[in-house]
Amino acid sequence: MKFELYYWPGIQGRGEFIRLALEEAGAEYQDVARDPGGEQQAVRKLQDLLGDSKISKPPFAVPVLKHGELVIAQTANILLYLGAQLKLAPADEAGRLWANQLQLTVTDWVVEIHDTHHPLGPTEYYQDQKPEARKRSQLFLKQRLPKYLGYFERVLLQNPSGKQFLVGDKLSYPDLSLFQVMEGLRYAFPRHLSRVEKKYPGILALHDHVQQRPRIAAYLVSGRRLAFNEDGLFRHYPELDD
Amino acid sequence: MKFELYYWPGIQGRGEFIRLALEEAGAEYQDVARDPGGEQQAVRKLQDLLGDSKISKPPFAVPVLKHGELVIAQTANILLYLGAQLKLAPADEAGRLWANQLQLTVTDWVVEIHDTHHPLGPTEYYQDQKPEARKRSQLFLKQRLPKYLGYFERVLLQNPSGKQFLVGDKLSYPDLSLFQVMEGLRYAFPRHLSRVEKKYPGILALHDHVQQRPRIAAYLVSGRRLAFNEDGLFRHYPELDD
Repeated sequence: MKFELYYWPGIQGRGEFIRLALEEAGAEYQDVARDPGGEQQAVRKLQDLLGDSKISKPPFAVPVLKHGELVIAQTANILLYLGAQLKLAPADEAGRLWANQLQLTVTDWVVEIHDTHHPLGPTEYYQDQKPEARKRSQLFLKQRLPKYLGYFERVLLQNPSGKQFLVGDKLSYPDLSLFQVMEGLRYAFPRHLSRVEKKYPGILALHDHVQQRPRIAAYLVSGRRLAFNEDGLFRHYPELDD
Repeated sequence: MKFELYYWPGIQGRGEFIRLALEEAGAEYQDVARDPGGEQQAVRKLQDLLGDSKISKPPFAVPVLKHGELVIAQTANILLYLGAQLKLAPADEAGRLWANQLQLTVTDWVVEIHDTHHPLGPTEYYQDQKPEARKRSQLFLKQRLPKYLGYFERVLLQNPSGKQFLVGDKLSYPDLSLFQVMEGLRYAFPRHLSRVEKKYPGILALHDHVQQRPRIAAYLVSGRRLAFNEDGLFRHYPELDD
């Protein structure tokens, strides 16, 4: 049974965490963002889904995954489901909860990264909150980023199965998400990252491992991988970098 | 087997979503915030847990729940576990994912509520970000709050089992969390809430139902329920209200 992913066209955004899991598993999926009818048609499909007054479990926002009868939303919730479906998480309860816990910590981190360019919230353009974005970015880079990077480095070091992966001795979906956050941070804050990232050798090794996995490597050079841009989560505004 | 909850003393914060589930189920639990050794001892226990360099699954932050061998963090992850343990969520996969999806939407909402008083992030005091907090609060009350309230009202209306509960025809943990958010919003923005809340009769009926459930009613008047205050998630700063 095919998976169907609903997400905005033109950006990686939160949909990308789902795409990386589907791509790593070699799963067959239909991506509404690449609807053959074009971007307008894709947006219409998303709006129809989000506004559907008949659906019994309405989503608040995309990404949404359809699989058979199931229509589920929230990135970490979709990954919890796909972790089991695609064998990208341990099968036992403690392992599943641990993968979910790490993914929720990635979620918190991603909100803080988004808020570096949108400290006044998602309703106003970046152009209308530039001074606030500058303040928040400086605080984020100085105080919050080392806390998150230090945490994930520590998770790798304290993993009793060795420091290659976050969860046990196999790749799981939080590894893919951590790779994506590192890619996004390097895009958004290239000067700052080049200065600090070497303090986290475990994370860098995991990032490089993910990048070289055959299916991920093929995906990254395919037309399916969109480029980062200034409409997404991770935005490069040089004035917010070091 | 007893549950052990680790959370900061003196505030409801994110720990309160866990407490409400434990209280509704009549579960036996030990609350480190009320350690007989006092608040200093409680904080020492939290810091020992958060800094433990031997633990195989280190938490990023509290709340943390210990149950037997299990040590889990992240509010929604703890509730996912407790939902099954305490029968506060459906047993089938689709129902569990739906409860988790709703809880993650509550999580997003709570971050936005927190950011009304901390738009520059958690590292600076409110006093050092008052003008930004005023801007963000106005945008939140005008544009984001109706989106969230409208969404949860719609979830109730579109529930095929009737509009009494968010998930199926029984109380589940997202109902308790929605109750808590409404309590918090009334505390933080009393003028605004008294003006708008009547537009959401389904949410108000659910709030009142939760408040009157025997165990919740008993909890709310017990010494275990802390008062809201200006160190928590939901803060009353009159200058941020209408």
